[in-house]
Amino acid sequence: MKRRLLLVSNSTLHGGGYLGHCQEQIQEFFGEHVKRILFVPYALHDRDSYAKTAREKLRSLGYEVESIHETADPVEAVRRAQGIFIGGGNTFRLLKALYDHNLVPEIRKRVLQDGVPYMGSSAGTNVSTISINTTNDMPIVYPPTLAAMGLVPFNINPHYLDTDPGNKHMGETREQRIQQYHEEPDTPSVLGLREGSMLLVEGDRATLLGSTKARLFTRGKPATEHTPGSDLSFLLTDGV
Amino acid sequence: MKRRLLLVSNSTLHGGGYLGHCQEQIQEFFGEHVKRILFVPYALHDRDSYAKTAREKLRSLGYEVESIHETADPVEAVRRAQGIFIGGGNTFRLLKALYDHNLVPEIRKRVLQDGVPYMGSSAGTNVSTISINTTNDMPIVYPPTLAAMGLVPFNINPHYLDTDPGNKHMGETREQRIQQYHEEPDTPSVLGLREGSMLLVEGDRATLLGSTKARLFTRGKPATEHTPGSDLSFLLTDGV
Ligand SMILES: [Ca+2]
Ligand SMILES: [Ca+2]
Repeated sequence: MKRRLLLVSNSTLHGGGYLGHCQEQIQEFFGEHVKRILFVPYALHDRDSYAKTAREKLRSLGYEVESIHETADPVEAVRRAQGIFIGGGNTFRLLKALYDHNLVPEIRKRVLQDGVPYMGSSAGTNVSTISINTTNDMPIVYPPTLAAMGLVPFNINPHYLDTDPGNKHMGETREQRIQQYHEEPDTPSVLGLREGSMLLVEGDRATLLGSTKARLFTRGKPATEHTPGSDLSFLLTDGV
Repeated sequence: MKRRLLLVSNSTLHGGGYLGHCQEQIQEFFGEHVKRILFVPYALHDRDSYAKTAREKLRSLGYEVESIHETADPVEAVRRAQGIFIGGGNTFRLLKALYDHNLVPEIRKRVLQDGVPYMGSSAGTNVSTISINTTNDMPIVYPPTLAAMGLVPFNINPHYLDTDPGNKHMGETREQRIQQYHEEPDTPSVLGLREGSMLLVEGDRATLLGSTKARLFTRGKPATEHTPGSDLSFLLTDGV
């Protein structure tokens, strides 16, 4: 499988600029052969402004940006893309727009069969997994399904947040929410990517990158911690 | 309209016991004519244990509890209920179960036409509103729609949380999430009920109760703050 993915937890790290904390990984990931990246701004309402932000940042790293919302035919834009970047925002809105524009099978084909490099951040990471069942976002719209592009056979929780024992708020902790997901039958593993971390997938190899650990939740097993540099290729085996 | 609702933000307030912070309001709400309350534990996975918790607490307040998951015919149980209480947990799981058991139209009819008092807490408050679009919960299952029971013509965000300016986490604040909802067309008002607050609805009159203020979000207008005791009846007018 030619698959190449860079799945980032968050676009902006506290105190840094847009994509600042992962710019080296982005350049290494897209490399010098990719000249133009297709940007998908559907997760935010103001697509023009979002495309401008992404364009400025990616230009500074040496890439031209075509924003899919400015193209006449989004499916055709995916067909000729050299690289794809789906940005964060609201995951429900993003997934619904991907289905509305018939992009789910097309992106899947380009990435898994043609080896077009795919970068996702936050919501863009959620939609690359099996389903958006483990998004943190508010369900502001109703997509036709929670099933996503399935570029990897597990789920991710971006912006993973540790339980703060001093917090007096009584809403569920992030860990409790993921445990509730695993109370449902046949639910896949969930990789909790803390802010600052990202997952690099190349074919059947997966490596944790970035500055923070990741927490892995597997149904019926205790959660495990993984440090940056860890080989997480076992997650790519179906049936995990 | 005979409608009587007690819509609570949260079941447990930090440092208190289950339903401890609203027990006086519960007794005043169900009064002395209601002897038995129908409890709906669908929002949590362990229904037996949840029913036990609710039963013990409500018994101490003078009410017998029938848990709907222990009845042979849930629709029939709603038909003969003197009062209904839907507890919190995961809102997606709860709404899906209500539809799976064909309870949405039945509860709606009993509450709006027959005047059966309805109490909801957290997820049980979400499902009483127009839709669950403003739940905080993780979408661990996929309900057939996000439309809910519509016992009131607006939405509620329970466990409403103020923005913490010192927080370094980059996920959206609660206010940003609700603003994203209002970027979508024709979206109703959202009442942010902070933990400790609750809304009492009697016919066409709505009053904020409890110990904390509520924050009201209306599409295209600045958010407003409301203190306990405020008359919020204007929210019950259709088209808000
Ligand atoms: Ca988001
Ligand atoms: Ca909840």
